[in-house]
Amino acid sequence: MPLRVHYGLALAKGETARGRASAIAREQTVEIPAGVAAREVEARTIGVVGEIFETSARRARVAIDYPWRELVSDLPQLLNLLYGNISLQRGIRILDIDWPRELVERFPGPALGVAGLRELVGVQGRPLLGGALKPVGLDVPALARLAADCARGGLDLVKDDHSLADQQRAPFRERVLAVAEHVARANRQSGRNCLYVPNLTGPVDSLEERLDDLRDAGLRAAMVAPMLLGLDTVRRLAAASGVALVGHPAFAGSLVAVRQGFAPELLFGDLFRIAGCDVVIYPNAGGRFPFTLRDCRAIQRRLLAPLGDLRPAFAMVAGGIDAAKLGRWLPEYSVDTIFLVGGSLLGTPDLAAAAGEMSELVAGTARRGEGR
Amino acid sequence: MPLRVHYGLALAKGETARGRASAIAREQTVEIPAGVAAREVEARTIGVVGEIFETSARRARVAIDYPWRELVSDLPQLLNLLYGNISLQRGIRILDIDWPRELVERFPGPALGVAGLRELVGVQGRPLLGGALKPVGLDVPALARLAADCARGGLDLVKDDHSLADQQRAPFRERVLAVAEHVARANRQSGRNCLYVPNLTGPVDSLEERLDDLRDAGLRAAMVAPMLLGLDTVRRLAAASGVALVGHPAFAGSLVAVRQGFAPELLFGDLFRIAGCDVVIYPNAGGRFPFTLRDCRAIQRRLLAPLGDLRPAFAMVAGGIDAAKLGRWLPEYSVDTIFLVGGSLLGTPDLAAAAGEMSELVAGTARRGEGR
Repeated sequence: MPLRVHYGLALAKGETARGRASAIAREQTVEIPAGVAAREVEARTIGVVGEIFETSARRARVAIDYPWRELVSDLPQLLNLLYGNISLQRGIRILDIDWPRELVERFPGPALGVAGLRELVGVQGRPLLGGALKPVGLDVPALARLAADCARGGLDLVKDDHSLADQQRAPFRERVLAVAEHVARANRQSGRNCLYVPNLTGPVDSLEERLDDLRDAGLRAAMVAPMLLGLDTVRRLAAASGVALVGHPAFAGSLVAVRQGFAPELLFGDLFRIAGCDVVIYPNAGGRFPFTLRDCRAIQRRLLAPLGDLRPAFAMVAGGIDAAKLGRWLPEYSVDTIFLVGGSLLGTPDLAAAAGEMSELVAGTARRGEGR
Repeated sequence: MPLRVHYGLALAKGETARGRASAIAREQTVEIPAGVAAREVEARTIGVVGEIFETSARRARVAIDYPWRELVSDLPQLLNLLYGNISLQRGIRILDIDWPRELVERFPGPALGVAGLRELVGVQGRPLLGGALKPVGLDVPALARLAADCARGGLDLVKDDHSLADQQRAPFRERVLAVAEHVARANRQSGRNCLYVPNLTGPVDSLEERLDDLRDAGLRAAMVAPMLLGLDTVRRLAAASGVALVGHPAFAGSLVAVRQGFAPELLFGDLFRIAGCDVVIYPNAGGRFPFTLRDCRAIQRRLLAPLGDLRPAFAMVAGGIDAAKLGRWLPEYSVDTIFLVGGSLLGTPDLAAAAGEMSELVAGTARRGEGR
């Protein structure tokens, strides 16, 4: 089975959909004009243009079948085939990808997935609630206190803000050990198992040492920003680190912009999952980012849909979800959703109490069976 | 000195340039609403909005000064500060960056730079000519023959196509050893020192082994696609691999698209150089990609301009440059340019002869002192 890629094209004046599609099929493979390579080389290498729908005078939707076995040896090369050179051209957006099972099975995907993460947190049958330690600029004791409040309030996990790296005011190892200790103490008091998720994103040659820090702190999860680290570094971490990976969308936005890049559910759904994210964070509809509810639900569907033998992954919807809004969003997402409610809590006078209120709301939803 | 970032903004109806700029300064740092964090935390952490030019009713140019010492601990975190969350919003483009010397000096940059690469190739005072081994789909003997022809024709370097990875038809190690041997033999015959540049882009956990393959083959340069591998993996290679790095723009295009991302000279000029590319490949004007000559020259200027203590890097302009067009492009670029002429040679009946003709042209240019 070939790798079928569906493109949305904006055509220049005088350009035909078939001509543009043929140019893409060639650009992404042999990248030379017709007639230069031997015919049998072209025949086994170039993508084959399939269905073409001219959706309007200057727009079309086309499918190209790629002989992926000749082309894809690894994840960077898969990204290159999908969107390497054509990222530099205009008016091309990848709308859908039909994945051959054998191609997907070359990648292990999420090491834990939904079931493994639920086991870590010890919560079944309801959505999860996540908090965020922020802002960057706080020192370690302040971050640790925040984390303890989140854990006492019944949040299921608490993650570092993605801007917390290894700054002098809160160095990685010191922060991780202190926050982990505070969360563990709160867990002992509550009998729950709130998960602390430090931001692992950093120099690639520091990752092994930072994973040792996580082990020293008894932690089982970490946040990574795939487009800051490189998607293949995430794949390596998923295969070898032994921790659950929470993928953050920083620096990924231009790949899902209007009329270019990927449909959001392909990047944050399929590709982040193939790379091994157990959880994928993305902005919820109605917040500071231009994601529609349709986008947000489509990403979640792809994270949970069958894809080779890969484990399903959690969606973590983020941005401006407070107690008042949580009730509105709960029914829009599957039960396998993590709602990131951290920002709204930070403004409340009693964080643990406010978190507790939201935890009750989610628990109630589960009892009423509202999650889909 | 703060890190000053200049943005071009497209404003929504009713939005002010100052309001938008303040939102960016907050989004990229503390990422919480005003009033949540203590005033002294905000004061030392949030970017400071500087000059604002309203260039039209709905467009503006603004500068923000970031207290980078509080925010940036490494290269992924620098990318995050520049364009992490705002990549997910619309209508924001980074037009310029004023780099504090001390920030730039945290990164070693190109290990060889222009002077080091010229020494490897043994060519001074004229632009260089590069060829490409392609298409993917050829087997190792065919690729090795092509490389030998390029070397015999007097090209200064010959690189793998960026789609040559570790496919079964031309596996990495087998290809690298065979091509290196053919190029070395041609070099012994010609007395020149044509450099073979294999495509190192691949699984991050295979890079060490592949570098060993390069050493076994006596090679001193490799191609990497920073946006496929991750920019920080390139930094690590520059710091530790001992080979010259040729950066390829695959998958980078959406970061330099119109009205979002970065001005091309910031990504391909400053950031690729800061990450350690000794050479940066980008599409020449007038080819299959929408880069203007202004863009192309601006990228080269940034690769050569003073930037901390970083070594200057070569521009490698690519795409559709044949013998007829080379004469037109030579005077547009600095003498420290590599012209990638590989594709046009592949269609000629006698590749070595055609390459020889172009080499003469470049050598003649140098004698006449046309390169700027």
